[in-house]
Amino acid sequence: MGNGDTGVSDGAVDLVAEIRGDAVESVHRGHVAICDGAGQVVEAWGNPSVLIYPRSSCKMVQALPLLESGAGARLTQAQLALACASHQGAAEHTQAVGRWLDALGMGETDLRCGAHMPYSDAAKADLIRAGEGPCQLHNNCSGKHAGFLMLARHLNAGREYVDPDHAVQLAVRRAFEEVTEMESPGFGIDGCSAPNFRTRLDALAGAMGRFAAARTGGGVRADAMVRLREAMAAEPLLVAGEGRACTDLMEAMGGQVAVKTGAEAVYVAIVPELERGVAVKIVDGGVRAAEAVIAKLLVRLGVLDAGAPVAQRLTEGPFRNCRGIVTGRREVMLT
Amino acid sequence: MGNGDTGVSDGAVDLVAEIRGDAVESVHRGHVAICDGAGQVVEAWGNPSVLIYPRSSCKMVQALPLLESGAGARLTQAQLALACASHQGAAEHTQAVGRWLDALGMGETDLRCGAHMPYSDAAKADLIRAGEGPCQLHNNCSGKHAGFLMLARHLNAGREYVDPDHAVQLAVRRAFEEVTEMESPGFGIDGCSAPNFRTRLDALAGAMGRFAAARTGGGVRADAMVRLREAMAAEPLLVAGEGRACTDLMEAMGGQVAVKTGAEAVYVAIVPELERGVAVKIVDGGVRAAEAVIAKLLVRLGVLDAGAPVAQRLTEGPFRNCRGIVTGRREVMLT
Repeated sequence: MGNGDTGVSDGAVDLVAEIRGDAVESVHRGHVAICDGAGQVVEAWGNPSVLIYPRSSCKMVQALPLLESGAGARLTQAQLALACASHQGAAEHTQAVGRWLDALGMGETDLRCGAHMPYSDAAKADLIRAGEGPCQLHNNCSGKHAGFLMLARHLNAGREYVDPDHAVQLAVRRAFEEVTEMESPGFGIDGCSAPNFRTRLDALAGAMGRFAAARTGGGVRADAMVRLREAMAAEPLLVAGEGRACTDLMEAMGGQVAVKTGAEAVYVAIVPELERGVAVKIVDGGVRAAEAVIAKLLVRLGVLDAGAPVAQRLTEGPFRNCRGIVTGRREVMLT
Repeated sequence: MGNGDTGVSDGAVDLVAEIRGDAVESVHRGHVAICDGAGQVVEAWGNPSVLIYPRSSCKMVQALPLLESGAGARLTQAQLALACASHQGAAEHTQAVGRWLDALGMGETDLRCGAHMPYSDAAKADLIRAGEGPCQLHNNCSGKHAGFLMLARHLNAGREYVDPDHAVQLAVRRAFEEVTEMESPGFGIDGCSAPNFRTRLDALAGAMGRFAAARTGGGVRADAMVRLREAMAAEPLLVAGEGRACTDLMEAMGGQVAVKTGAEAVYVAIVPELERGVAVKIVDGGVRAAEAVIAKLLVRLGVLDAGAPVAQRLTEGPFRNCRGIVTGRREVMLT
C-alpha cells in the first residue's frame, strides 16, 4: 500500500442494498466466483480474479494435511467439523476441543491462538457471572489449532506451530497452493496468529469446486476432501453455533452443502450434488452482505429453499427495531 | 428500490483501505462535504450531493426545537449533551436521564425508544450479574427522547411523541429543513422509532457549518446552536461514553469541536474556530471507516493533533490480534 493499490476494489459490482423506509441507505460491492469440479469458472460477478485473503473460509483446506498425513485418521466427524470451525465458544465447542487436547496429552496452554471473549452470548454471560476471563479454548479457531497441534506431534515438529516456516504451516501452504492451483503471492497473520495465504477469488472457488467434486476412493486428497465437507455438513452446530449464519444455512440444506465464513466478508460453499464451488468477497468487509450474497447464491443454485427462515432473514429481512417496528429491508442484486 | 436505485453508491470514491500484512484486504468508499458558515461547500470528496439518512448524526438538529421553544431554557449542559447523545448506557448516562425524567414528573415507561442492551461492557456485565434485562433508559437515544418528552409537555401535545405527525416531530422536521435549507424528500423510521429525515450530505454539512458559525446574541436559533454545540464539546463522556470515538475525539480536541456519529457510517463535525461543518457518509455503512475519515479530516483541518492516541488508533492502527501480534494497519485516502 501507500501506492494507491486498492486492487480488491477494482471491478467490484454493487451486490447488496440496505433499504430504510423507501430509500437505499447503504450499498455493498463485491466479487463472486462459481467454479465447477475442475476449478473452472462457470459464473461470476465483479472481478473473479481479485486477490483476497480467504481468512477462516479456507479452514477445510488448512485441515487437509491433518488427514492426508494420516495424523487424523481416527478423528470423529465432530472433531473434523471443529477443525474447520469458527465456533462461538459455547460449552459444546470448548468442551469438545478440551477433550480433544486431553486425548493428545496436551492442554489449553499448548494452543497458540490466544484468548478472546466467546461470541456466544450465553458463554459470555457464564464467564461474567463466574467472574472469569476467556481462555484459548474460547477462541473461535481453537478447533483448527487442536488439529494443528495433532499434526505437529505427528510430524515430530516443534511447539510453535503457527510460525510460517513450521512444518505444519509449510504443509498447509503446500496443500493450499495445490488445491487453488496457484502460488500464493504472500500471507498475512490472521486473528488466531496462523499465516493466512492470499489467493485469487476464483482460485478459492476452484478449490471449493474440487472439494465438491471429490469422491471417496479417488485417492488420499479426494478422501480427505469428502471427509471434511461431510463432517462440516453433518455437524453444523460445531462449525459455528446456535443462530449463526453458517450453522443455520447448513441445517436448512439438510447436510447436503458445506458453507464457511471468513473474516472481512469472505464466504464459500461446497455443493457436491452440483459439483460446484462458490466464493464471495465483499470489498468493504461487511459480514451482513457476504451472508446475504451466499444465501442468495444457494437459492439460485437450487439447494436452499427461498422460503427457509434463514434465507429470508439473510437476503431480505424485513428488519425491525427494538420496539418491533419494521424499519427496512435488504435486496441482493445478482442480475 | 427494486429499480436499481443505488444512488448512495454513485460517484463514491475509495476513502479507507484496511491492510493485512502488505496487502489491501478491504476498501471503504464514501462521500465527504465540508461547508462554510453560510452552508456553501468548500471542499468535497465523492459526490457531496448524495441523499442520505443522517441517523443519529443530526441529534443536535433534532434538539433545536427543545431550546427554541423555550421548553429547555433551564437545561444544564449535561442534559443538553444527553439530548444530542448516542450514549452507551453506562451508569452515568442512565442515571442522568432517569433524574431528568423524574424532574419532569415522568418515568421510563413514558419513553418510546424501546430497550436494547447497553453498548457499555461494564453496564452489560452489571445487568447480567443482576439477572436483569435492559430498560429504555439504556437505549442510546434515551436522552434525545427525554428532550422530546419535555418538548411534548411544553406543547401540550400527546404521549406518542415519535409519531411523524406529532407536534414534536413536525417541529423537528421544520428545524431540520430550515438548517439544511432543503425540503426533505422523506423519512425512514430510526432504531429508536423516531422519524429520520433524508437530506443531501452537503446540506447536512451546511447545517453543521451554520452550527459552527453561530454566535451568542445572533437570535433564538443562533443561541440554541451555540448552547448545543458547546454542551456536546463540554460533556464528551455523556455524548457517547468511555472509549467511544466521539468521546475520545472531543476530549482530544479540548472542547473546541463537537462531533457526532450516526448509524450506517455517518459522521459530522462542527468546528467553530474555522466556521466549518463536516459531513461524511461511508457507502457500505462501515463504522470503522467513518471514524477514520472524520479523524483524518479533523487532522487536516488542524484541530486534531495527528499524534493524539485517538487519531492514531482510528486513522492508522497498527492493529494487533489477541496475542498482541501486529496483523495490519489502515490508510485513509484523502488526496
